[in-house]
Amino acid sequence: MKYVYSFKEGNKNMKEILGGKGANLAEMTGLGLPVPQGFTISTEACTKYYEDHGTLEQDLVQEILEKLRELEDLTGKRLGDPSNPLLVSVRSGARVSMPGMMDTILNLGMNDEVCEAIAKMTNNARFAYDSYRRFIQMFSDVVVNLPKESFEGLFDRIKEEKGIIKDTDLSAEDLQEVIIRYKSEYQNLTKTVFPTDARVQLLEAIKAVFRSWNTARAKTYRRLNDIPEDWGTAVNVQSMVYGNIGDRSGTGVAFTRDPATGVKVLYGEYLMNAQGEDVVAGIRTPQPISTLQEVLPECYQEFLQICNILEEHYKDMQDMEFTIENGKLYMLQTRSGKRTAHAAIKIAVDMVHEGMISQEEALLRIDPKQLDQLLHPIFEDVSLKSATVIAHGLAASPGAATGKIYFSAEEVQRRYEMGEREFILVREETSPEDIEGMNLAEGILTVRGGMTSHAAVVARGMGKCCISGCNEIIVDVEHKRIMTMDGKVYYEGDYLSLNGSTGDVYGQKLATKDAEITGEFQEFMSWADRLRKLEVRTNADTFRDASMARKFGAEGIGLCRTEHMFFEKERIFNFRRMITAPTPEVRNDALNKILPYQRSDFEQLFLVMDNLPVIIRLLDPPLHEFLPHTDEELRELAPTLNLSYEELKNKVASLKEFNPMMGHRGCRLDVTYPEIARMQARAIIEAAINIEEKQIVVKPEIMIPLIGDMKELNYVKRVLVDEIEKVQRERNRKISYQIGTMIEIPRATIIADEIAKEAEFFSFGTNDLTQLTYGFSRDDAAKFLKDYYAKHIFVQDPFTSIDEEGVGRLIDLASKLARKTRSDIELGICGEHAGDPKSIYFCHRIGLNYVSCSPYRIPGARLAASQAVILAKEERYK
Amino acid sequence: MKYVYSFKEGNKNMKEILGGKGANLAEMTGLGLPVPQGFTISTEACTKYYEDHGTLEQDLVQEILEKLRELEDLTGKRLGDPSNPLLVSVRSGARVSMPGMMDTILNLGMNDEVCEAIAKMTNNARFAYDSYRRFIQMFSDVVVNLPKESFEGLFDRIKEEKGIIKDTDLSAEDLQEVIIRYKSEYQNLTKTVFPTDARVQLLEAIKAVFRSWNTARAKTYRRLNDIPEDWGTAVNVQSMVYGNIGDRSGTGVAFTRDPATGVKVLYGEYLMNAQGEDVVAGIRTPQPISTLQEVLPECYQEFLQICNILEEHYKDMQDMEFTIENGKLYMLQTRSGKRTAHAAIKIAVDMVHEGMISQEEALLRIDPKQLDQLLHPIFEDVSLKSATVIAHGLAASPGAATGKIYFSAEEVQRRYEMGEREFILVREETSPEDIEGMNLAEGILTVRGGMTSHAAVVARGMGKCCISGCNEIIVDVEHKRIMTMDGKVYYEGDYLSLNGSTGDVYGQKLATKDAEITGEFQEFMSWADRLRKLEVRTNADTFRDASMARKFGAEGIGLCRTEHMFFEKERIFNFRRMITAPTPEVRNDALNKILPYQRSDFEQLFLVMDNLPVIIRLLDPPLHEFLPHTDEELRELAPTLNLSYEELKNKVASLKEFNPMMGHRGCRLDVTYPEIARMQARAIIEAAINIEEKQIVVKPEIMIPLIGDMKELNYVKRVLVDEIEKVQRERNRKISYQIGTMIEIPRATIIADEIAKEAEFFSFGTNDLTQLTYGFSRDDAAKFLKDYYAKHIFVQDPFTSIDEEGVGRLIDLASKLARKTRSDIELGICGEHAGDPKSIYFCHRIGLNYVSCSPYRIPGARLAASQAVILAKEERYK
Repeated sequence: MKYVYSFKEGNKNMKEILGGKGANLAEMTGLGLPVPQGFTISTEACTKYYEDHGTLEQDLVQEILEKLRELEDLTGKRLGDPSNPLLVSVRSGARVSMPGMMDTILNLGMNDEVCEAIAKMTNNARFAYDSYRRFIQMFSDVVVNLPKESFEGLFDRIKEEKGIIKDTDLSAEDLQEVIIRYKSEYQNLTKTVFPTDARVQLLEAIKAVFRSWNTARAKTYRRLNDIPEDWGTAVNVQSMVYGNIGDRSGTGVAFTRDPATGVKVLYGEYLMNAQGEDVVAGIRTPQPISTLQEVLPECYQEFLQICNILEEHYKDMQDMEFTIENGKLYMLQTRSGKRTAHAAIKIAVDMVHEGMISQEEALLRIDPKQLDQLLHPIFEDVSLKSATVIAHGLAASPGAATGKIYFSAEEVQRRYEMGEREFILVREETSPEDIEGMNLAEGILTVRGGMTSHAAVVARGMGKCCISGCNEIIVDVEHKRIMTMDGKVYYEGDYLSLNGSTGDVYGQKLATKDAEITGEFQEFMSWADRLRKLEVRTNADTFRDASMARKFGAEGIGLCRTEHMFFEKERIFNFRRMITAPTPEVRNDALNKILPYQRSDFEQLFLVMDNLPVIIRLLDPPLHEFLPHTDEELRELAPTLNLSYEELKNKVASLKEFNPMMGHRGCRLDVTYPEIARMQARAIIEAAINIEEKQIVVKPEIMIPLIGDMKELNYVKRVLVDEIEKVQRERNRKISYQIGTMIEIPRATIIADEIAKEAEFFSFGTNDLTQLTYGFSRDDAAKFLKDYYAKHIFVQDPFTSIDEEGVGRLIDLASKLARKTRSDIELGICGEHAGDPKSIYFCHRIGLNYVSCSPYRIPGARLAASQAVILAKEERYK
Repeated sequence: MKYVYSFKEGNKNMKEILGGKGANLAEMTGLGLPVPQGFTISTEACTKYYEDHGTLEQDLVQEILEKLRELEDLTGKRLGDPSNPLLVSVRSGARVSMPGMMDTILNLGMNDEVCEAIAKMTNNARFAYDSYRRFIQMFSDVVVNLPKESFEGLFDRIKEEKGIIKDTDLSAEDLQEVIIRYKSEYQNLTKTVFPTDARVQLLEAIKAVFRSWNTARAKTYRRLNDIPEDWGTAVNVQSMVYGNIGDRSGTGVAFTRDPATGVKVLYGEYLMNAQGEDVVAGIRTPQPISTLQEVLPECYQEFLQICNILEEHYKDMQDMEFTIENGKLYMLQTRSGKRTAHAAIKIAVDMVHEGMISQEEALLRIDPKQLDQLLHPIFEDVSLKSATVIAHGLAASPGAATGKIYFSAEEVQRRYEMGEREFILVREETSPEDIEGMNLAEGILTVRGGMTSHAAVVARGMGKCCISGCNEIIVDVEHKRIMTMDGKVYYEGDYLSLNGSTGDVYGQKLATKDAEITGEFQEFMSWADRLRKLEVRTNADTFRDASMARKFGAEGIGLCRTEHMFFEKERIFNFRRMITAPTPEVRNDALNKILPYQRSDFEQLFLVMDNLPVIIRLLDPPLHEFLPHTDEELRELAPTLNLSYEELKNKVASLKEFNPMMGHRGCRLDVTYPEIARMQARAIIEAAINIEEKQIVVKPEIMIPLIGDMKELNYVKRVLVDEIEKVQRERNRKISYQIGTMIEIPRATIIADEIAKEAEFFSFGTNDLTQLTYGFSRDDAAKFLKDYYAKHIFVQDPFTSIDEEGVGRLIDLASKLARKTRSDIELGICGEHAGDPKSIYFCHRIGLNYVSCSPYRIPGARLAASQAVILAKEERYK
């Protein structure tokens, strides 16, 4: 088994083994581009490292040392040899990019002798010492896991002692002093001497990269991004080139197109006399790439040429890292660049028009999950008129956001758990530790860092509004938890609004409005629509949701949850009267009061969904959800219901269940209280008649939830049909309607052939079906699932993507059984899985008719449905 | 479609259509026995009646009237014709006997003219008027549903007015007065005249019988006895004969063998000058049948002959009703007699020895559910020594019972719901309304009624101890809720003990002991054991249960629930420490303290189950079940655990789950706390080694509960195997053991082929599997299942008999999948279904290896397993 590959041995198709970075370094080498040479230790070696309980086996060590020898021969330098020292970088590189997640070590191979030698050879002692101290610092942090703060503190103290503010003002002697103190601190903390043997340094660094695959934050990132735990990371060992060796040196990152807008223009930034980390970390604010033309015109021209070669070669927008060492350009990385959804669409459509890729390739280029970024609110014009911009930063990730400011990710998390919503996370700069807080915030505002800083990259990945480098803000987090902008003080919890597309910051709450699907987006979606077989419907309970869903392309309502219609004040009052009714008369009276509300709700839905199917589910949740539970609330409520406190308390107690998820709910309610089903059937059919009388085509479909037994279905269907016929007689009008069921009880999937005799459609309720098939309650599983992730038992949450092996098989079985009985039965899913691309591929594969998801997920579902067709053709599934 | 059959048209195989009574009346007619002629309206007519919304269709009415005409021609009498009146009885008769559940009307065809005619023809005015008043009373009660008390009150008032105590002392004139008052009461209550048209009477009566199929008490009886709702009842219309026409008339019931002991001797009782209802109602105490020899020797001889014919013909012990009218014997009914389990076994074994039936027929004769009657405790001899009999009644249903007395079924129910147990229900006499209370009581004691009274018949059916006709008691229920016996007063809640085999009543609590399997019972069971293929194991957690189970024939332990071992004081303390442990050290310390207990428990089980498999399930329930929940208990517990009240309260709160059934339990606990699995594995293997060292063969099988995913199983199995290997190394001894899983999560059934790669055995946990497959929680379902029964959606509780269509299909699928992977995999079930005969037939059919049930159900399971073999051969299943 081969574990180590020199750059010359690989190519871009070997990502699974070499990781993304390694494969692309090999590809660029193959293309003859200027790449500092090196080798890649494969992802399989990472897996082996974990199998070997965190050790590098002797054979593997040998292989690494052999490749090192090859590299030494190639470069004519030797690692650790003061006579002609080779220095290398050690970087992680997983199959897919995990920005900021994995650790990097630069300048490896340094020790006192090597440092002196380099100082002499480069005639730049300051550079040599700075490289050395950086190495000690990184090694201590990444390999030995010593507290960052110790070394940063030492560094700051020396700056203080010397009365210096900028790092670059430290002299070579100052840096020598830093090195001495660093080594002593290292010894102090570890009780061992800092390793001087370069091979020991190398092997330790490699192990550290492997270990970093399993840090908590890497795991979180993988879970958030559906990256399997067992992929592992590769390690790239590459000879060092230096952007910080003088004024004809520099380093930068660039995109072949604008990653925020997609416009075809070289886009990027660089810092002269700096190492790569300086750009990404956002400590100094970099220059736009175009200015390089003036500084180093030849380098710039060469770079432009390479950009074209790479985009042509990869047929995608590239995100590249480069370093200039004494006027010589080196490419350190290329990869398909992350981009905003807006840019992604524009680039894909442009590339089709440019003849670079096909429509189908374009469709596969976009992650369906990204699309909902394009649908998120922008500021209302009206609201903007009265607003003034109080600060301006870099437009790092587009979209509008409004929320309360907090100064740490932890605080955002804490508030979120307390039930608060709408946050703007304000930070000096973000770091990987902030990921979860960023995920919860509406928007992110940072003081430092450029367009490629951590905050900017991560926010774009999340489709989250972000303004970075807004250095007009002064954040005083540590002591007062306030920030000052333009002289005005903002406290924790104050509202701020961000426009991530312009970089404008507003000091108040602003109203937002929904986006529109136009231009390239519309064109792109039309390609998807032409291709897909799955219909896409929406889960919507209100006129507002339904209207929005139609704008986003919904082809009907796949799930209207009628219980959501009961929560308005007057309605909940009557609903509670219905629940607590001491006599059938009171119950019927309460239901009669609810009827007009329901009818008018349904009328609105039918109106919006002109000529499209509207699936209305009968009341589903347990009745206790409609009653308050605290003594205080009960005391207040009781008299309004004409009940004594004790009576109400008893009623609430009698409704209490041990396992409400498996209790008295769904069609079971209709068995006990057929009058509820009757009222709902009447409301639906009366609404349908009223709207049909306006010459609008209505297609009502009544869905009975939680069916597990044929006789249940027969009973409830009989109740519905009797009432529907009654209404039709009263109104002297026939309405065409369907009655179907939700398939969410495992038993229903087994007897689906029977059920299909009476049900005209099935909607798979994959949330409950997953709960029951796995036997775990979603509300409780979070507690133990974290152990499941930690122990690699689960790779991902089965409530996010359909568990194809278990739940999926039941759905497939039920579909086949149902079609045997009723070949034209309409089959769809309406659980949360319906918006998940992987699950949509599955639905396409087993031949369902539609998926139904929340409005914002509709364009993504339309895209995923078209991708399913392409993937099925190519017999490949993500 | 034919709905009405004359007795000559039917036979005993037509029970489904004619009901049991009708089919046997037809059979006896065919045998040439003296049966008053008549006709039967089929069970299909009953179904049709309900389909026609409670009406008799015109065609059906015509058919009934035609058959009536035939009957009139046959008897030479005409219904409603004063010149030669025919009177008929109208009785229900379902497929299986439902004693006391259905309603009967006698003397139908009576009106003023007919009554006068009969008075003249019989020259017995008193008889004529008495028959008439009985008819009005029954018709008003059964057909029109008027309150019984009104008529009983009128009757009592006349007796009072006349100064008469016994009904028989009322004169013809008194009875004429009764009739006048009855008719006026009828008119008063119904605002209509009592119907005089005999055909109207007949049709109304038939409808009433049909209606009575659906009374609440009939439904309850059916549910308790697994009788499908849709069978319906037939109606038998039969010409009347009179046991109350004078001193050479009488009526009685008899069994061809003793239904309590099974001894081959004619057994029964009769009343002279009485109608059948008088015997059953227990108002007068009847005479033993043997005395009839002296009263009417010819009748007696004829009856003996008929008894022999019937038993020979039916090849089973018969339960017969007869009436003697002026010295002429008529047979009114024959059927297979209900009997105690003891009698059933003896009769079956005797009949095999008598050459009347085969062993296989004998095995099919016994209801496996009955057997547990034979296993129930009898009084300890020691306890009996100090006890004195305070009263004596009829030994109506055998067995020993001890409990607190209550005087109404409702009170027993109420107390039961409050959590009380051990009741003796004491009643004047029981009626069908008391069924549920009787079911909850340990024993039943009645003041009036004979061996065939309602209490006696029902108690025998339930296998419940009963003493009837204990007229030494004076019950004062209405006012004081006390009873007096031998001058001593007993209050509600006082203890009484009953010996249902002797009729002895003891005025105290008595210790009981278990029964033994000997004699005919043992012989019978040996036939079953020779035949059956299914192994029968037991669910047992203690030495006591395991020992008892072996006595009852258990072939190993199919389920040892280790959590039951944690509830003893010292153990629960350490278990709570384990749960609330703030550090791993405390947790491990607590587990180490529990280890010796578990080990010694397992040692005892291995000892009892010498050379038999012992399946031990790892800890299964959610941890919160081990902690108290009230503030008071928490405050008390906290310091003992070295925790503050707040800490403990928080811990308890953090363990609270929305749906604990689907929460953090089963193998999920082992994923979070592998140390629990480790401790249990160690306890099992150390115990096994300790016992094996005593030259006893141990067969430990470790069962992992709640597996839903392969990786779960892999993880927990790895933990177990590592620890087991460690123990084996420590002890330097190899133990042969198996690791398997409980299949109780629907998903596990779908991936059973995968699971079988790692699991050496499966035990289907049908309780949880049923909950999840149906999606209802057993704890909550009771609330809505009553509506399901009422609305005919469910016929029976799916937790009693395996739902073959749903849950059963999953079990079958899983078995097939598992055997594909591992052909010799051991498959069994250990849910409560494992003791249910119908479910055992199913298990046999799909080829499981064993069933595992509670000790008392083992003999029944052994029998059912043998029946499964016979039924499979005959391709018939109950």
